[in-house]
Amino acid sequence: MNKSNSDAPWLALTLDRQLAQPLQAQLCGAIRRLVQEGRLVSGDRLPASRALAAELSISRLTVVTAYDQLVGEGYVIGRRGAGMFVAPDLAGLPRPPARRDGGPPPPTPAPFRPFDTGAADLAGFPHRLWARLLEQAWRDPEPGLLAPPDPLGWSPLRVAIAQHLSDWRGIACAPAQVIVTSGLGESVALVAAALLSPGQSVAVEEPGHGPLRRALAAAGLGVVSQRVDAEGLDPEALGSETRAVVVTPSRHFPLGMTLPLARRLGLLAWAADTGSWVIEDDYDGEYRFRGQPLPAMMSLDEAGRVLYAGSFTKVMFPGLRLGFLVVPPALEASMRQAMQKRGAQAGIVAQPALARFIAEGHFATHLRRMRRLYAGRQRVLLAALAESCAGLLEAEEAPSGMHLVARFAPEFAARMDDVAASGRCVAAGVRARPLSGFFAGEPTAQGLVLGFAGFGEAEIQRAAAAMGAALRA
Amino acid sequence: MNKSNSDAPWLALTLDRQLAQPLQAQLCGAIRRLVQEGRLVSGDRLPASRALAAELSISRLTVVTAYDQLVGEGYVIGRRGAGMFVAPDLAGLPRPPARRDGGPPPPTPAPFRPFDTGAADLAGFPHRLWARLLEQAWRDPEPGLLAPPDPLGWSPLRVAIAQHLSDWRGIACAPAQVIVTSGLGESVALVAAALLSPGQSVAVEEPGHGPLRRALAAAGLGVVSQRVDAEGLDPEALGSETRAVVVTPSRHFPLGMTLPLARRLGLLAWAADTGSWVIEDDYDGEYRFRGQPLPAMMSLDEAGRVLYAGSFTKVMFPGLRLGFLVVPPALEASMRQAMQKRGAQAGIVAQPALARFIAEGHFATHLRRMRRLYAGRQRVLLAALAESCAGLLEAEEAPSGMHLVARFAPEFAARMDDVAASGRCVAAGVRARPLSGFFAGEPTAQGLVLGFAGFGEAEIQRAAAAMGAALRA
Repeated sequence: MNKSNSDAPWLALTLDRQLAQPLQAQLCGAIRRLVQEGRLVSGDRLPASRALAAELSISRLTVVTAYDQLVGEGYVIGRRGAGMFVAPDLAGLPRPPARRDGGPPPPTPAPFRPFDTGAADLAGFPHRLWARLLEQAWRDPEPGLLAPPDPLGWSPLRVAIAQHLSDWRGIACAPAQVIVTSGLGESVALVAAALLSPGQSVAVEEPGHGPLRRALAAAGLGVVSQRVDAEGLDPEALGSETRAVVVTPSRHFPLGMTLPLARRLGLLAWAADTGSWVIEDDYDGEYRFRGQPLPAMMSLDEAGRVLYAGSFTKVMFPGLRLGFLVVPPALEASMRQAMQKRGAQAGIVAQPALARFIAEGHFATHLRRMRRLYAGRQRVLLAALAESCAGLLEAEEAPSGMHLVARFAPEFAARMDDVAASGRCVAAGVRARPLSGFFAGEPTAQGLVLGFAGFGEAEIQRAAAAMGAALRA
Repeated sequence: MNKSNSDAPWLALTLDRQLAQPLQAQLCGAIRRLVQEGRLVSGDRLPASRALAAELSISRLTVVTAYDQLVGEGYVIGRRGAGMFVAPDLAGLPRPPARRDGGPPPPTPAPFRPFDTGAADLAGFPHRLWARLLEQAWRDPEPGLLAPPDPLGWSPLRVAIAQHLSDWRGIACAPAQVIVTSGLGESVALVAAALLSPGQSVAVEEPGHGPLRRALAAAGLGVVSQRVDAEGLDPEALGSETRAVVVTPSRHFPLGMTLPLARRLGLLAWAADTGSWVIEDDYDGEYRFRGQPLPAMMSLDEAGRVLYAGSFTKVMFPGLRLGFLVVPPALEASMRQAMQKRGAQAGIVAQPALARFIAEGHFATHLRRMRRLYAGRQRVLLAALAESCAGLLEAEEAPSGMHLVARFAPEFAARMDDVAASGRCVAAGVRARPLSGFFAGEPTAQGLVLGFAGFGEAEIQRAAAAMGAALRA
């Protein structure tokens, strides 16, 4: 072997044929380490390929390929006729980072517990059917599924959503008005990008949905919290600077009241008169236990000022991250432009399965089953609260939804606030979010927000009993 | 029937037992329409429920339920002892929007055509295997898949990505450092939210990736386009205000050169010295045809200043919308906070299937197959260009990637610019993007960017011939 100016590193260099890593990669890695550890320095000559191959009992091609690789990476330079040398300008080369122990994988998420509000009944979801729809969509995918994706979403899903909205929410819209999104956050960010300018003022309900406020603020908008009264948001109270309002007319979040028709009309008139926008957040409009779901505000909108946002996450399963935005016909073109510019966030994998789930009626069946189930669970919760939390909490039957708000009985309200009460519940293993936490400003109401949809009767009763004991202690 | 003050509307009211819509819903709808059309006005008395039930031959309960529903919606009010009346304050009630003809569904997307750069070989993707993995993940889902999703992604996928990066890119990272995102856009938005302040300056390569520039600008950052030279981005040229740089060291996009080691070290030293960040966009680092993939910059980073962004969309199929960001260990906590605050965008449906696809070795097999296939397709394209576009276009073999840049021969460059040339190609059915379109400022290079990965040999040859004819005409 034609020795380089320092033999030691080359003699120490060993390759292992037992390793899965190819010999050439092992050789590259070994030479890189010699450089990184300072055992080879700029200008050092590398052994001739033939000599090193003989030394290591490997093919010359393996050495040549490894050297080529190192030249490509910049560790090594070739000088015509003179051989290969460690490259100059490597003084700042860092030591290789210590291999981090992979350690235990990140923990898998903890399951929902009573009374988490985000929980749906997942035992009742038709998982096998859903899995089959996924498999059928992808085993021999339609060409459109492999084409450049339409930023507005998978076309058959948009058709299915439009039909569903017509059947369930009284909204007569064409599929072209429907945009598939990854949920409310993307829907409002899209509205902000397409229809509003940074710094413009958007009103949201107070109390209301914290993540919504953050999404609007992240989009550069000025977020104004607008106190609701017993009927909900009052259009008369909107500031003159307000360019858009996000409202939950079907069922206020989290308080639960339905916005009366007169107020809806007032909001529509305000939007039409001022050229402003109404974003209708219909987060669980399908889960009405008595009567049919109320018709959506969008179905009353003649001026084309309402954008309707829905989500499948709450009514199917968490993590699905598919929602939609319905826009007035006049906005179709500008919304397409905005989506093209922003780039779609919703992945396509679940979209063909969801399209068939809706179009074949499975979604409606699921909604009806869940509606009956949740109505029963609310009754169980109300009875359990009456039994276990009498004198502490007072709750009324809500006509719809997946949660209720338990208010404090006067004598209990004198003893502690809802943050303290929530803390006691959590310590007892029961998740009960304080109503005051839904206020951006000074809270004007106290209570506990209790989700009942995701839990069986016995679980609800046990949790209510534990909550009662914790609050009484 | 106890007539209301105007009989006509009630007499015209008919319900149809043949319809799928329940009678009660039909009745609600009919009364709403009477109000909306002005045939019933505020203060009009509704028929007594018993009388209307008899008139319509339906049960009284159906009428009572419909009235309750209309009260809930605000159309109707009940006055104790006096009956039900159309509500006051309906003057502004709009007419119901004309039912929009659903019309044809939105068109499904057009397929990829030569020489689209976003196209992978989709005939070679193991669709049945992928479909089976989806089905297996969801038919009886692990409890963690139905729990509140970890905003950092499905844990087994993070484990699989960490292992893949170690095997293929020389990055020794723990799964806790890996964040699943919906792609590069979310990855850079996350970095902006967690590590940068609005208005701070981020350098990007010029020419470079337009959607990346837009994502950074949308995140409120000041985007500075930094000219690359023949070696790529020069760390010496970074402005003193620059707080972060996004770079494609494996293979510059779109020009294709590999950033030399000395420049990588220079960038790392700059980041460490100035407390700035390097976002390493490794968009097709696995597709190296000669030698092994170069080790990623992150594998050389001792100071914890490199964030590594990857995506599965290009190497699997469009619309998958799953990517990842690897962060230095010291940033794990702040990144988790930022993700919790922003909300995850990546849906969970594809994540367990992708985790198994990687962990079971199918991904590596697919990458190796595609690498061989794409190397061959590049050779076909080069031969076809030499044959059909001699004297017009000059292209060199790229050592990696899914596209190449064909430069203009001097005599051809004198005849037209690349925008005109691209227009001629498109008119001839060939998609060839002008290189100048990748510049944010004044373009300093002309050429056509030709993707070869997604097209068979015959398709490539036909398209090259059509392109040659169009450019010569």
